[in-house]
Amino acid sequence: MSQTGHVMIRIAVLKERESGERRVAMVPAVIERLTRIECAVTIEAGAGAAMGIADDAFVGATMVDDVATLVADADIVLAVQPPNPETLAAMREGALLVCFTQTADMPAMSDRLAARQITCLAMERVPRISRAQAIDALSSQAALAGYYAPLLGATHLGRILPRMTTAAGSLRPAAVLVMGLGVAGLQAIATARRLGAVVEGYDVRPETRDEAASLGARFVETGVDARGEGGYARELTPEEKQTVAAAVTRHLQAADLVITTAAVPGRPAPELISAEQAAGMKAGAVIVDLAADSGGNCALSQPGETVHSGGITVIAPLNVPSRLAEHASELYARNILNLLELLIVDGELAPDWNDEVLAAMRLGPVDEPAGQRDNTAIA
Amino acid sequence: MSQTGHVMIRIAVLKERESGERRVAMVPAVIERLTRIECAVTIEAGAGAAMGIADDAFVGATMVDDVATLVADADIVLAVQPPNPETLAAMREGALLVCFTQTADMPAMSDRLAARQITCLAMERVPRISRAQAIDALSSQAALAGYYAPLLGATHLGRILPRMTTAAGSLRPAAVLVMGLGVAGLQAIATARRLGAVVEGYDVRPETRDEAASLGARFVETGVDARGEGGYARELTPEEKQTVAAAVTRHLQAADLVITTAAVPGRPAPELISAEQAAGMKAGAVIVDLAADSGGNCALSQPGETVHSGGITVIAPLNVPSRLAEHASELYARNILNLLELLIVDGELAPDWNDEVLAAMRLGPVDEPAGQRDNTAIA
Repeated sequence: MSQTGHVMIRIAVLKERESGERRVAMVPAVIERLTRIECAVTIEAGAGAAMGIADDAFVGATMVDDVATLVADADIVLAVQPPNPETLAAMREGALLVCFTQTADMPAMSDRLAARQITCLAMERVPRISRAQAIDALSSQAALAGYYAPLLGATHLGRILPRMTTAAGSLRPAAVLVMGLGVAGLQAIATARRLGAVVEGYDVRPETRDEAASLGARFVETGVDARGEGGYARELTPEEKQTVAAAVTRHLQAADLVITTAAVPGRPAPELISAEQAAGMKAGAVIVDLAADSGGNCALSQPGETVHSGGITVIAPLNVPSRLAEHASELYARNILNLLELLIVDGELAPDWNDEVLAAMRLGPVDEPAGQRDNTAIA
Repeated sequence: MSQTGHVMIRIAVLKERESGERRVAMVPAVIERLTRIECAVTIEAGAGAAMGIADDAFVGATMVDDVATLVADADIVLAVQPPNPETLAAMREGALLVCFTQTADMPAMSDRLAARQITCLAMERVPRISRAQAIDALSSQAALAGYYAPLLGATHLGRILPRMTTAAGSLRPAAVLVMGLGVAGLQAIATARRLGAVVEGYDVRPETRDEAASLGARFVETGVDARGEGGYARELTPEEKQTVAAAVTRHLQAADLVITTAAVPGRPAPELISAEQAAGMKAGAVIVDLAADSGGNCALSQPGETVHSGGITVIAPLNVPSRLAEHASELYARNILNLLELLIVDGELAPDWNDEVLAAMRLGPVDEPAGQRDNTAIA
């Protein structure tokens, strides 16, 4: 019981078990905010270990060793990756689960959610509307990945990004091409510009031109307008596709570093760079493919690997936000806090399932999963 | 014979054989300049392969497969690392060799130089005087390493360097501490500042304060003035050392990323961070030790390795300029061009061994190696 007489809402935070996942769904800085909205927070021991946060840093939370005990009476279970079947089975019936679900085997997970009458709020399904922005975990994580990509590329490049003047003469700045100007692409532009590179931005959506320009990047003009209905790109004619490819090829050939960021939630990533285009790039050029988690934007990408092919290097890192685990966890935890503030009204867990945000995020048990949304925005 | 009737000066460029060495002593852009000063350039086939430069890119030079043939009649042999004994033995008597020699077994190399009457100009021995700056390869390579260090550190850090404002709230910029404010340290400050970090600079030489400040870094004040004779640091008293260490410790504890750059040519690198100081750093902090080639500035550094210890990461990369092989080779080749312009007068190879620069760089055969110079400047 809290001071105000309400029953505290019990929130359990899981330690991540997936290999390579260093994030955690709650950080010390956000716990205090949760306690203010009548939440009692328990956290699995060692949850922060992979990102260097010791158990005793989670001030205000109770640390619990056994995961079954942790989730047994939790009203809400928080995680980054979807929990394993054993954890789902240990959750109390009717509880709420908040996590990303895009890596889950959805038919199997739906069955398990149904079996325990668990409602899952899928963090990758936050609608891209203005009032949901503070919950939008895809965006917060994509921003960090976008920041990171030029740094990763720059450490694999034989050249420096800025102009440098030395007693022996000047070095020219590198040419960076960012393909896909969503949240990640714009942050990639920002980092590359900070580092002094000459940056170009490319997107099939011409309305991204101004955003690229405002960050100091020149927009690649293909001469083709791909605007379709609802702000999404329309299918191009074969002739238009050829025109676009030819324009893109010229810019690829001039680039020292290319960063690709075109991901479509729930679908394989579109190919932005063919094997032939990659083969035509400058010797020593580097591609960083941020869409590796969904297959990659470059025909040469091998997700999780760095490939050297014909003088160029193609880096296709998986789960880039996890590499920035400390800040990625902080933003993810704040996304979740903002979601909980929507779920919790006057200290009571009272989700309004007619709310457009919650309805879009909700998986089972009452509704079937909403299926594949037509969300073609580039992350 | 050149057009002007002079005998062309024959310059041979070696392919590097040392593992991990991707640089090459000549780049296509500089060959034309060499031909203008009556030089005929031959290059070992495959010399540029490790940095992605194909043989046919060395326009104006002759590519030679066999290294013995390459060096047999060369007046000057250019390399990055000291050549192996077989190559030295194949050089013609009385030829000139230009390379770094700090990784060589100097007694053995001196014997071999003497046996062939070869004069070696050691690129790490360029005196730090104004008119030699354009030849100063230690500086040109250190500038690139300094640029690179914050990028390497940032890719290992769980946080981002800049302030970032997202819909879920703001992330605070990282705190970066650069220790040793020579050429490398100042470039490290510049990169970290470009990336939006809050940067501090530390050096035992208080006269570096203004340089750090001009790049936007706050100078760490220890309250001790270590100025000695000739602009070099004097030995501190035990009490002064303690005062300095205590001040440095406070700044280390506040840092997310620390970059150390204190190298003294020909000597082991000084320890700037003790094991105890490292253990007191923030969980998740990263140290990049640019002095790993000469043993490292951090007690925890293992040269060539990345060590995770007590929540912090210590990266001690070897031969960082080689990672930026394209630009490092370009600057090195220009340093060599400027040296050759000093050696070649009116199309004749006519070194003035009384020239202060050449005298300082010269090893054998007439003089003994000048021995260990008292060069305590921090690179």
